Amino acid sequence: MRKISESTVRRLSLYLRFLEQSQVQGVPTISSHELARRGGATSAQVRKDLSFFGSFGKRGLGYAVPELVARIREILGLKRDYRVVLMGAGRIGSALVQYPGFRERGFHMVAIYDRDPRKIGSRCDGLVVRDEQLLEADLRREPSDIGIIVTPPEAAQHAADQLVRAGIRAILNFAPVPLQVPPGVEVKAVNMALELETLSYALANR
Amino acid sequence: MRKISESTVRRLSLYLRFLEQSQVQGVPTISSHELARRGGATSAQVRKDLSFFGSFGKRGLGYAVPELVARIREILGLKRDYRVVLMGAGRIGSALVQYPGFRERGFHMVAIYDRDPRKIGSRCDGLVVRDEQLLEADLRREPSDIGIIVTPPEAAQHAADQLVRAGIRAILNFAPVPLQVPPGVEVKAVNMALELETLSYALANR
Repeated sequence: MRKISESTVRRLSLYLRFLEQSQVQGVPTISSHELARRGGATSAQVRKDLSFFGSFGKRGLGYAVPELVARIREILGLKRDYRVVLMGAGRIGSALVQYPGFRERGFHMVAIYDRDPRKIGSRCDGLVVRDEQLLEADLRREPSDIGIIVTPPEAAQHAADQLVRAGIRAILNFAPVPLQVPPGVEVKAVNMALELETLSYALANR
Repeated sequence: MRKISESTVRRLSLYLRFLEQSQVQGVPTISSHELARRGGATSAQVRKDLSFFGSFGKRGLGYAVPELVARIREILGLKRDYRVVLMGAGRIGSALVQYPGFRERGFHMVAIYDRDPRKIGSRCDGLVVRDEQLLEADLRREPSDIGIIVTPPEAAQHAADQLVRAGIRAILNFAPVPLQVPPGVEVKAVNMALELETLSYALANR
């Protein structure tokens, strides 16, 4: 399969959300126009995005919802569950642990780590905060797939190093600092202030 | 000025972060190569991004850091402060209220609203949670610029309607549902599960 761009992956995620709702409601087929409306794209964009993966739609009939759901879930790697560990037991960490959208999509928060002795041993939404030093041994017994970094900025690189050493190959970084990781490790950054800056740009340039 | 794409705006935000660090360290000039390395782009991309706004760099000398900082801040609408209101006093809301990156960039969380009587009146990082019904009157007295929605999904559209009625023209939506807003209102969606899906895609297609 061809490598697809991150913006295409994001649109596929949005289409999938809407398709799953339609599936629950028993809707059998859907048009590219309707998918476009819900995914914030044009019909032509939807057809192009989906054509990457072979031919789905029937002219005049649209896409069969269950087939398209199954295919997009496969493309996005959602046919399986993922084990996720959190680095940092602060407020953002505890907000994420209870975020219902994760478990629904097959992302299971299995452990939360911190290096602050005052936090280690405390409870966070059903998980006991574990000593960061146990990470490597824990993951050797039972590997995880994804690490989320919600430490303060100055601790983020150290947390990333520990995740990489423990065999994690995909990191979601909430700390507002760039991370250095070896080739083969995927990092996505979520930067809250940056989201607001796309809005300040819009307000300043309307 | 030409309308620039959201991905360019995002890269400008990243360049700005690095430029500001360089400025604090007293670095006078910076090359497109160095900016590219920190912004996750190519040198050619950096030069293209910055050429949108006129000619900055001197061949062989690079960009003058203070001038470039000032210009990007102006482009992003960061020469002024913004008043931000939060809709929803749950865990994500309280994590955001204390997020230090916001105030640093001039985004001030001025109020938090909820409609749950058990939450109204409670304290959340120095702010008292206010009754959602007061929003319109509050903003008539003292307008705000940006609204952040961190309600449960089923309450998000109602929160958006209230923000729009109170004169808000820029909304950051953390609830995993699309919002209907009138033309002229800018909405950005932050979807945590979607971020993880770009990682599951990467893990499934390596």
